[in-house]
Order: sequence, then C-alpha cells, then structure tokens
Amino acid sequence: MLVEGPQAVRELTAHRPFAVRDVYVREDAWETHADVVDVARRATRWVHPVTAEVSAALSGDSQGICAVASLDALSRELPEPSVGETIVVLAQGRDPGNVGTIIRTADAFGAVGVVAVAGTVDAASPKVVRSSAGSVFHIPVCVVPSFADARALIHGRSAALLGTSGGAASISLSDLLVQVVSARSRLSQSHAWVFGNEARGLSGDEMRLCDGLVSIPMTGDAESLNVASAAATCLFASQTVRGVEH
Amino acid sequence: MLVEGPQAVRELTAHRPFAVRDVYVREDAWETHADVVDVARRATRWVHPVTAEVSAALSGDSQGICAVASLDALSRELPEPSVGETIVVLAQGRDPGNVGTIIRTADAFGAVGVVAVAGTVDAASPKVVRSSAGSVFHIPVCVVPSFADARALIHGRSAALLGTSGGAASISLSDLLVQVVSARSRLSQSHAWVFGNEARGLSGDEMRLCDGLVSIPMTGDAESLNVASAAATCLFASQTVRGVEH
Repeated sequence: MLVEGPQAVRELTAHRPFAVRDVYVREDAWETHADVVDVARRATRWVHPVTAEVSAALSGDSQGICAVASLDALSRELPEPSVGETIVVLAQGRDPGNVGTIIRTADAFGAVGVVAVAGTVDAASPKVVRSSAGSVFHIPVCVVPSFADARALIHGRSAALLGTSGGAASISLSDLLVQVVSARSRLSQSHAWVFGNEARGLSGDEMRLCDGLVSIPMTGDAESLNVASAAATCLFASQTVRGVEH
Repeated sequence: MLVEGPQAVRELTAHRPFAVRDVYVREDAWETHADVVDVARRATRWVHPVTAEVSAALSGDSQGICAVASLDALSRELPEPSVGETIVVLAQGRDPGNVGTIIRTADAFGAVGVVAVAGTVDAASPKVVRSSAGSVFHIPVCVVPSFADARALIHGRSAALLGTSGGAASISLSDLLVQVVSARSRLSQSHAWVFGNEARGLSGDEMRLCDGLVSIPMTGDAESLNVASAAATCLFASQTVRGVEH
C-alpha cells in the first residue's frame, strides 16, 4: 500500500515499523521533514532520496514524502472485548475523505476499533490513509461481508448496535448525554455506533437490525449533518460518558 | 456565483429566490430532480433544459443541475445579538471542504452566524457552497479584515471568544458540558468558537486574543482532530448546553 504525506508516513513508521518497505523523500523535503526521516530510518534502511520528478510520479499528494508498506500495516482484528467499550461500524461509506476522517475521530475519542461492512471504501486506499492522518495505523479496521455479520460480531462482544437516524422513534443524543450525570445511559454500556452511506444514510433493513436508534438533535435549518461530523458528535458523547464517574 | 448540485440549488431557490438568475437542468435530470425543478420554477422563469455537453461545460460536479445566483444570495450581516447565542469564527480556513462542512454544522446546531477573517476561503466559492449542502443560504457569513476585528465584533455582542487548543492551559470541553447540569457553564453565555487553520491551528497571537481556551479531550492515539470534526464537537456541546433548563 502507498502511504502519502509526512503525517501518515510518521505514524506508519512509528506504529508499524515492521510493515515499512521503502520510504521515498524528495531532495528538498529531507530537511523540512527531518523528524519524519529520522523515525523512518529507525524503521528501515530503505529510505531513498528522489528527485522532484520521481516524487511527483510516485504520488501527486505527498508533500515530498511517501512510503510503500505491506498490507499488515493495517491491523484487521479487534482487541479482546472490554467493559463499556465503543466501536464504530461503517455501513457502505463511499467517500474516502469521510471514511478516513471517521477513523481519525474514532481513534481520537478512544474507540477500540472500526468494523467496515464490505462495500465500504478500503482503509488501505491512499485517500483514506491520508484523511485518517495516520490513524489507520493506530486502531484496527476489521472487514465483514455483510451488515448482519457486523451485528453478530458486535453482539458477540455484548455490545448494543446504535444506529443514527433522524426518525421520530429515535432517542436524542443530547438526552443520553445529559441523563448520564444522574442516571445510567445506554452509552455507559458497550456499544457500537453505525454510520451509513453519505448520501442515503442507513437503509430500512440496517435500521431494523439496530438495537436502538439515536438522533442528533439539530436546532437550525440544515437538513442533516455530514456523516463525519455526525460521527464526531456521537463519539465525543461516548467518550464524555465513559469519563463520568458513577 | 455558481451553485452546483440538487441540494445546493434546492436551498438557494427555496431560501434566496430573489437571488436566482438562471437554473440549468440536464435533460435526463429534469425528472430525477423534479422536486428541485419545481422549487426553481417558483423562484425564476429562467429554468433552462441543457444537453449533457452543456451541463458538463457549466460544471463538472453538478449531478445535472446548477444555478447562477447574484452574490446577495449570501447574507453578510449577523442578526441582532441574542442572549446565550453561539457564533463561529473562522480564522484562516483554507480548505473549502472543511469551511463548507463547518458552515453546515454551525447551521445544524443553531449558531446564529459565521464570522470569516479575511484569508479564509470565500463562502461563495462553488466547493464551499457544495460542501455546506446549501447552508450558506441559511446562515450569514460575515467577512472581517482581521482577527482583531472579529474579536471586537464578538465583544460588541457581549460574547466570549473561545479558542480551541490542545494546550495545557485549556479547560476541557467535557468538563464544561458535564458541569452545566449542576452549575453554570461558560457555554450558557453568549460565545464564539474560533477555529484556526487546518494544518497549524490557531497562532499564538490568535490564542492570546481569545478570552478562554478550550481543549477537546482525546483518550486515543490520534494527535488531533480534523478541524470540521472539532467544530462538530464544540457546536454540539453548545447546543446541548443551550437546551438544558436552569
């Protein structure tokens, strides 16, 4: 897999040194990104200076530094279940920018891993890696063949599957969050947030397979949130609830 | 200004009908987007069917429907100040996708408007309009020459300027949110969230001009959040606090 840009290469070489094959550094980037080059040289002896032409041919969006890694740079297995854990399920996420941003946010807010239903853009794709800012090298992204398989995996961890939906039957995320101070919220238990397709959201079938539907209340005029913004909101709420002492 | 895609054209024609000049609909999109065409025809008689070639020449990213609007489609004035209002300040946002997504989120979570410091990508640019999903036609985006002017404007509304920062001196957003149930939080008062440049965040000067710095706690390995994800988190917290009865 191709890993582009100083941030992604830094995270690859620092967190998955065994998977690094080659690192290519444009001559003028050798000094600009000296810290990244240092980490890369600890991971591999195959750090190559290249001309601007070669660098541009390797990647159009690398800021002068890119790497080739074996696919085991990505962890594909969730860790052992833990009490009160948060997981992300991606159902048919098609936009690499959104998928990468959600992986970055899941990592930032302490989710234990991401479950990607087949059809979701691959975590190894260069645009996902880049927009994840290297978080694909921090948390596991496990691929399952179908939404039903994702559900079985989540239930096998004694976690609840929470879909996001604007529908009337949903619980409000704000209520879940505010309630937690005085009472136990569903977010205190192990749970997985399901995020659907950017344009269409979750399908009716996917919603029926969820254990609960949560709406993100919106007091303004926008019809909906960007899916990565919705994910940031939900995952921040989960982290906040995990941090509250009972 | 050019407005591309069914969602942005729908919001333009529904919310700013006076600003619509011409709407161009690819022949095969006339039926697919019949609802948008209906709204457009109520706004103007200049709804033109065009061939696939003309449509592609007008816009490479319109899904068959685009519009030309006068610049007064964008409101540039904040409304009269209101008690406990939330505002967004964009300091040097360069990526149109992020800027548009933040405007969409500000709209969704009930912010009264956006203040863009000169140097921030223009709200009228087609990519900002598209990634805002039409929210640029819902809430005002007011441009000011400098960060100091943004500060004066916010202070003139008796609002506090809150910068986002990972620094040690910051208050935690989770604490502000959880405290609000039992005590008054700074988020209960009028406030403006300041979001900095995607790559560098807020400058030292910008931080010094803020009345408070707030950190978004992160329990995972990611170094930072995408700026639009950070905005979603802060604006959701503000909306949640506004909804809590005291």
